[in-house]
Amino acid sequence: MKTLSSIHQISVRFNEVDSLGIVWHGHYISYFEEAREDFGKQFGISYLDIKKEGYAVPIVKTATEHLLPLKYGDVMTVETTFANSRAAKIIFNYTIKNELGEIVCKGETIQVFTTIESGEMMLINPDFFKDWKQKHNLLDG
Amino acid sequence: MKTLSSIHQISVRFNEVDSLGIVWHGHYISYFEEAREDFGKQFGISYLDIKKEGYAVPIVKTATEHLLPLKYGDVMTVETTFANSRAAKIIFNYTIKNELGEIVCKGETIQVFTTIESGEMMLINPDFFKDWKQKHNLLDG
Amino acid sequence: MKTLSSIHQISVRFNEVDSLGIVWHGHYISYFEEAREDFGKQFGISYLDIKKEGYAVPIVKTATEHLLPLKYGDVMTVETTFANSRAAKIIFNYTIKNELGEIVCKGETIQVFTTIESGEMMLINPDFFKDWKQKHNLLDG
Amino acid sequence: MKTLSSIHQISVRFNEVDSLGIVWHGHYISYFEEAREDFGKQFGISYLDIKKEGYAVPIVKTATEHLLPLKYGDVMTVETTFANSRAAKIIFNYTIKNELGEIVCKGETIQVFTTIESGEMMLINPDFFKDWKQKHNLLDG
Repeated sequence: MKTLSSIHQISVRFNEVDSLGIVWHGHYISYFEEAREDFGKQFGISYLDIKKEGYAVPIVKTATEHLLPLKYGDVMTVETTFANSRAAKIIFNYTIKNELGEIVCKGETIQVFTTIESGEMMLINPDFFKDWKQKHNLLDG
Repeated sequence: MKTLSSIHQISVRFNEVDSLGIVWHGHYISYFEEAREDFGKQFGISYLDIKKEGYAVPIVKTATEHLLPLKYGDVMTVETTFANSRAAKIIFNYTIKNELGEIVCKGETIQVFTTIESGEMMLINPDFFKDWKQKHNLLDG
Repeated sequence: MKTLSSIHQISVRFNEVDSLGIVWHGHYISYFEEAREDFGKQFGISYLDIKKEGYAVPIVKTATEHLLPLKYGDVMTVETTFANSRAAKIIFNYTIKNELGEIVCKGETIQVFTTIESGEMMLINPDFFKDWKQKHNLLDG
Repeated sequence: MKTLSSIHQISVRFNEVDSLGIVWHGHYISYFEEAREDFGKQFGISYLDIKKEGYAVPIVKTATEHLLPLKYGDVMTVETTFANSRAAKIIFNYTIKNELGEIVCKGETIQVFTTIESGEMMLINPDFFKDWKQKHNLLDG
């Protein structure tokens, strides 16, 4: 099965580290978001693309696993992979590596579709998302 | 088995919500931290208590599940429960409720022990943690 | 001349302090915002009140002066005072005190009016703001 | 008189913008810090360099002036200039430009010297800072 993934680089900011120079764990949720949005821009499924279709995609689950610290000045590489699924969900997996190529953090986010008009959650995939999957040969997922 | 839990109230800040007035999902990691530290102060196992013993307790895993949104001005109640385990880990479960008592978010964090001196990870529980468990009748966990 | 001010309490969050337990200076901009929005809710000039009138009020200037540190767990009191002016601006002064009543931080923010429709900046006060001033006996400012 | 300045590039993060895609004004304090620390690394007066000498340099004043918005994905250039002064202070001026070279934000920060040991504020410049100025031909300031 085809998988779709993007690579995005992020530099650690000075205010993201504590006094020991280590990135605070909560910032990884931002890194995931930053990388996910970059994926979205590359493959036409960004926040704005989805909004234009009349949907919001709120996060319903996140998971992070921390293996190594990042320090101030480090440049990380985030690989964002679309995890195909039959459910009416958008699932992304993330792998963050440091400059040595070592895995620093792994994670997952799950989003659902809600209509902007009524706020209701979709139980089946919206048409635009099916079209998007088809375009990227992901329909059997 | 005895469980240990604390209740902590947090008010949503204006800068924590997006333009729709909904709290950004990444902030829940902060709410967990805030509540965990409050638990630590109540039961003598705060960040500073642990540091005094020569240990740091870095987060190695987080998980969040989002069921309902929080809005600007909402006051949430975070229940933090110590999840007893034989492993050399500190595991907390969190349940965040809104003012109506509805569950807004559930989550978990896992921390390990590293010595401040060498940075090495402990494979067995440090003595001070065993003592702490004993004091709170949690040793069979 | 009449002045209008509000009092708002904010608790320092664990993630707002560095390893020395001191609040990072950048967070005071959030405290000002939080207090300003509280003023707005009390006196009918909140973010949403203004949006309803078709205007946005972007910040064009901020200033902070730091006299004493705040620590984790401290409860601060922010006094927000509307500084009347003939210019088409919203000017607020802030005084943050600790629990001993000592001044911790002083500051100012200046906002202008832009129309949501065109994004253009107003050179004279919009009518709704004149009405608001009149209602609060601030027209001579 | 000689001036010392550095140029630092920062990319706007997705989580730094509101729903209109505009960077929240409070983030500029972080951009200043990031750029100041970059200046410090270039000229040997970083946070860690100063700490090694036994001093902390807490911020006592900040000022920002906002002229144009920054959007998600924008790459800004921050020029950080050391403003020489006879006072026992570190004063920096900042000019942030967008990719068109337009000024987006201007600002200033003022820091004082406190000894790490006693926490007392220095009324005259510490020797290491005089040496640093001499090395960079800034002593007449």
